[in-house]
Formats: sequence, structure tokens, C-alpha cells
Amino acid sequence: MADQEVQRASTYAPVNIAVIKYWGKRDTKLNLPTNSSLSVTLSQDDLRTHTTATCSSSYKSDTLTLNGSDQDIAGARTQACLRELRALRKEIEAKDSHVPKLSEMALKIVSENNFPTAAGLASSAAGFAALVRAIANLYQLPATPTVLSRIARQGSGSACRSLFGGYVGWNQGELDDGSDSVAYEVAPASHWPGMRALILVASAEKKDVSSTAGMQQTVASSALFQHRAENVVPKRMEAMEAAIKDRNFEAFAALTTKDSNNFHATCLDTDPPIFYMNDTSRAAVRMCETINQVAGRQICAYTFDAGPNAVVYYLAEDEGRVAGAFKSMLGDLTGWTEGVKATDVSAGMEHVAEMLKKGISRVISTSVGDGPRKTEEHLC
Amino acid sequence: MADQEVQRASTYAPVNIAVIKYWGKRDTKLNLPTNSSLSVTLSQDDLRTHTTATCSSSYKSDTLTLNGSDQDIAGARTQACLRELRALRKEIEAKDSHVPKLSEMALKIVSENNFPTAAGLASSAAGFAALVRAIANLYQLPATPTVLSRIARQGSGSACRSLFGGYVGWNQGELDDGSDSVAYEVAPASHWPGMRALILVASAEKKDVSSTAGMQQTVASSALFQHRAENVVPKRMEAMEAAIKDRNFEAFAALTTKDSNNFHATCLDTDPPIFYMNDTSRAAVRMCETINQVAGRQICAYTFDAGPNAVVYYLAEDEGRVAGAFKSMLGDLTGWTEGVKATDVSAGMEHVAEMLKKGISRVISTSVGDGPRKTEEHLC
Repeated sequence: MADQEVQRASTYAPVNIAVIKYWGKRDTKLNLPTNSSLSVTLSQDDLRTHTTATCSSSYKSDTLTLNGSDQDIAGARTQACLRELRALRKEIEAKDSHVPKLSEMALKIVSENNFPTAAGLASSAAGFAALVRAIANLYQLPATPTVLSRIARQGSGSACRSLFGGYVGWNQGELDDGSDSVAYEVAPASHWPGMRALILVASAEKKDVSSTAGMQQTVASSALFQHRAENVVPKRMEAMEAAIKDRNFEAFAALTTKDSNNFHATCLDTDPPIFYMNDTSRAAVRMCETINQVAGRQICAYTFDAGPNAVVYYLAEDEGRVAGAFKSMLGDLTGWTEGVKATDVSAGMEHVAEMLKKGISRVISTSVGDGPRKTEEHLC
Repeated sequence: MADQEVQRASTYAPVNIAVIKYWGKRDTKLNLPTNSSLSVTLSQDDLRTHTTATCSSSYKSDTLTLNGSDQDIAGARTQACLRELRALRKEIEAKDSHVPKLSEMALKIVSENNFPTAAGLASSAAGFAALVRAIANLYQLPATPTVLSRIARQGSGSACRSLFGGYVGWNQGELDDGSDSVAYEVAPASHWPGMRALILVASAEKKDVSSTAGMQQTVASSALFQHRAENVVPKRMEAMEAAIKDRNFEAFAALTTKDSNNFHATCLDTDPPIFYMNDTSRAAVRMCETINQVAGRQICAYTFDAGPNAVVYYLAEDEGRVAGAFKSMLGDLTGWTEGVKATDVSAGMEHVAEMLKKGISRVISTSVGDGPRKTEEHLC
């Protein structure tokens, strides 16, 4: 290998949307959470980060580019990931002197999201998962997704869940060094292939506090938060894993909505209060309730992350009754699954329809997908 | 006394706005609460129910009129109040045969609010307090406000607090018959005469579930509610009584805001979620936060009942900085204290100003007042 040669490896990594929410850290440096969480990995056909990691002895320093603009790579979180990955590479290099010393070269990392970063779609989870997976590929690390999840967690907590596809848990762990705070597969995407997600992207409004700052304000000031972390979530984690294993959509849906509301309740109980849901979000909630009422059972479930966007889970067999109901109000927007017929449930819902039309700027129809995919398509 | 003579007595009764919230009943028939609460009685010069109770042997049956329209008097809650009051009257009649047997006559009760009932301003509290006080006057009962609070509580829980002026607690009580679930004076209005309240009445929007239905949904389904009732409120009751006794506005304000948010958090954690605060309410919250930031300390506190209206407490000495700041944005509305100068804090608050202008339909400036006032002005 010529000394100036550039080594490269690329990957795609998915977005995940939690159904049992991560909110609160017991260790802010290591991103160790106060409670376990569980998410659904969304299809990379619709939402993904594409990352190429390269290294060369000709590079002067580590660099990171996202969607064409230079990013600060010196942040403690990114540095923690690079340090851990280089340490694993060093172990390989130490065992065999023929192996090129990539760990000593500077890294050039180029990333692109196929969705607007500003839309508040958990882009940091996909971003850190892709960064860690791409460098692991570049370094030819034999590390398992579990080990990589431990590293990605230090970049962004929820990134650990994007190392796996399907239904993914993140065990809060108990150890001080965080070595047991890793993600695990609850079930692969193929276990429950009918699961669908409709994302209602809310029009840009200045976001409330960032999730990083917000969650620690909640930990510090909410009178309800500790009760959630210690008493509410553990039972829900067990029940949610069972619901997924049994493909019990009604149980999945009930837990998903309750946990979203429970999380936002602790945000509202923060001092000063944090409001991520707005009147558009409330309209999406009312719409889901109406869809379930019309169906006579829970055929859709909403969840909201740290922003006003609704993610609505439903089964493919109910596409017309769920996505179709939203389409009847938001048909002017693109992003619907091909062939979905609009189902009109608008009687008495004029106010809800008005709020949704005013507040939703785009929709994304997607499904459950697999974990990071290696690719030979390089960004540099 | 001629047999057909009409006996009459009239009273005014005040509205109260809780600073430690009542939400949840352990006994729905007797309106026994799951936690104690504490409120501020507002001045009857601005908000009051005026009620005249009359009785006559010429009346065929009990009737109740509110703002000119007939009300259903047969409801269990109203009936409970009438039954209790008649029983006390009967005791007097039994002791002295010369006392006219008013308890055996039908009652005609006429009520008027000097504020729009629909505005969601705790009108049922003032209404039941006035009804009970007026009949007690008519019956010339020697009952103390404490005894009357026990009766009014059965009409509408929070009505018990409107039997007293100033700062009023409602002890949840422990007994099954509710006899110890009564209101008590924490301090009279004169103890802290500087206290002011600015009510921001939100434009009519279809209200979420009624508080009667909503609170029991919360009790039944919220994973956080019991923790609030058992662990959060008891400490806050003690701290709030101390803050009032010490006239410590910053402590009063911190507790008021936190408890409002804590209550609304349990509403959001209800299944299905209850949203009383809307985007207008959120804007009022942000406005209060900005006013406090500009002042460098907490000079105002917001609280929201089961609706989007904000009640902002502040001290008279800060009138310009608090009411004046709202006036700078809402100056087109009437209802300001005479002479309040608008204080502009609008820099960077364009979105908040827009939301408030769009969502607030009127303001009411008021102060702390006394308990029910007997009057010779009769409505019939």
C-alpha cells in the first residue's frame, strides 16, 4: 500500500423512532440513560444517513462534513467515538505488524442525509450510527453491533439503537463505565413486516429547548420524572417487548401513545416547562383518536419526539383507514404510499382538519427496516 | 307571618383560583378529593355570583335560575346541598315551634354572574358557594363558613374554598363521610393586600373534557397522578402556607407555576390525553418567563385551570412591569387597571405577541377579596 493511498468505507444508517422514550441521563459524559428505551428502526429507503469514512497519511487532521458543510469534529461526543474506534483498531494493529496503521492517520468523514436535517427527525441518531459503522468498516473491526452501539451511544444516546434493524431495545445498564448500556435486537424487521409509519412533519416553528439540554432540566426539576424512570418505564419495557413478540398491535399502540404522553408530561412538569407538542400536534392526536373510534379498536398509535412532528404507527392492512384518513385532509401534500385511498372521517372534525392543513408541511410514508447497510457508493 | 309570605335572603360569593390544584376525587358522590388544595379568593368587585334564595308555601317545587335561564335543580349535587341545608334548618325548627317551617317550603333560587359563564372562570365554585350561603342566610343558620364549606363541597368541590376570603386551604380529610374535608382560612385578604391577578381570557375554543369527567379519567389512567397526589402535593401545601404567611412572593410564585404545570402534566398523561393549555396558553407562559427574566427575579406567576385562560399573580408594586408588559401587546383590549403604563418587552417576542393578540379576547384585572357578602339587593 502506497503511503499516500486513501482507504475508504461507506455505509447507510437508519433513523429510529422510540416507542418507549429515552429522556434523562444519569451520566451526561457517557450518555448513560436514567431508563431503558425501545424503538422501531425505519426503512433506509425513505430516511437514512449515508456516510463515507476515509483515512490517509496525507490528511492533516480529522474532518467531518454533513450535507456539504463542515462540522465541528472537536466536540467531546464525536471525539469519544473516534477515540474508542481507534483503540479497537490499535488492538488489531498491535497483533499484526503487517496491518496498516490506520489508527494513526487522520480521518475525513463525509455524511449526507436524504431528508431535511432541520425537520427534527432524529437525524443525530442516524448520523452517529453511520459515523461509527463507517469507521468500523474502514478499520475492518470485528466488533459486533452491540459493541458499536456502546460506542455510538457516546455520540448521541439514541444512536445506539440505529445499529440494529427492526425493534430495538436499549438497556439502561447499571455499570458506571457504561459497558452494559447497549442496544439489543428485540425482533428483526421481518418478524412483523406489516408495521408502517406515517410521519407528519410540522411546519417550521422555532423549536423549544434542545433535547440534550431539555432532558437534564427535566431530571433536575420535574417532580414526576424520577417516578417515570423508576416505576413507569420498567413495566412498560417488559410489556412492549411482549407486545412486539406477540405481534399484538393493540397492546403496542396503547403503550406507544401512553409513553409518548408520559414523556411529554414530564417535559411540561419541567421548570421552566418544555413544550414540544403544539396545537398541530394536538390535532394529530385527536385525528388518531377519531380513526380508532371509527374503527372500533386501536388501529393507529401516535408518538412525538422532542418536537411537534407526529409519527403514526399502523399495520399495512389498515393503510386506507389510517393513512387514508390523513390523506383526506392533507391530500395536497406529497409523500403518500402509492394507491392509498382517502378515507373521509372529517365529520365534526373541521377544527382538526384546519389545524392539520395549516400546520403540516409534508408527510413521509415509511415502514420498518434493517440496520446499517454497507455500500460501495462513496461520497468522497 | 302570612302563610303566603315570601322569605328572601341574598348574597354575593367570590370566584377562587387555586395555586395548589384540586384534581381527582377519592369519592365522586361526596366530592372528596385525592389531595388538599389551596386557592386565592378574587375580589367580588370584579368577579362574583349574586344569588337570592326565597321560599314560600305558595311555591310548588324548587327552582333555580342562572343568568335568566332555568337550570336543572334535580341533579344529585344540588340536591345534596339542599338536603343538608334543610336538615340544619329542621334542627332549629324542632327546638322552637314558633320558628316558621321554611324547611318544608319549596325554594326559588335566582343567580347571576357578573362575568361570562362561558369564559371558564370557575363559575361553579362561586355559584355553589352563593347558593349555599344564600340559603343559609334565608334559614338563619348559625353555621360557620367551615360547616357551609362542607355542604358547598358536595355541590362543586372547589366551591368550598369560595366560602372564605383571602388565602384558603381545602383539607382533603380522611373520614369516609367527608366531615373533615372542609375549607379553612390560611390568611385573610388583608394579610397580603398587595396581591393582584390579571386574567387573560382566551378566545372561545371548544373546551376539552369537563373537569368533572377529566379528573376521574386522570385518576383512572395516569401513571403519574397518584405520585402527584401522595408525594408532590402534601409538601407543596406546607410550603405554600409558609410562603403566604411570610408574604414571600418568590416562593409563592415558584410553587404556583410548578403546581399548575404539574397538574397539566397529569392531564397530558391521562388516557386519552387531556389538553387544557393551547398555543395561546404557551405564549402566556413564555411572556411570564420573559417578564421575570427582565426583572431578574420572579415577579409574576401563571396558573391555568381546566381551560386555556391564564391567571397571572403579581404584586401591586410590580403592576407596570407585569400587567404593563401584557398591556404593551394587548393594549387594544379593555380591562386594565386604570393608569397602568405599557412596558415594552417585545424584543424577540414577535411570535409570542402574535399568539397572544390572536388568542386573548379580554383581560380582567383584579385583586384578592373577602368571602361571601350578604346583600339586601334581591334578584327576585
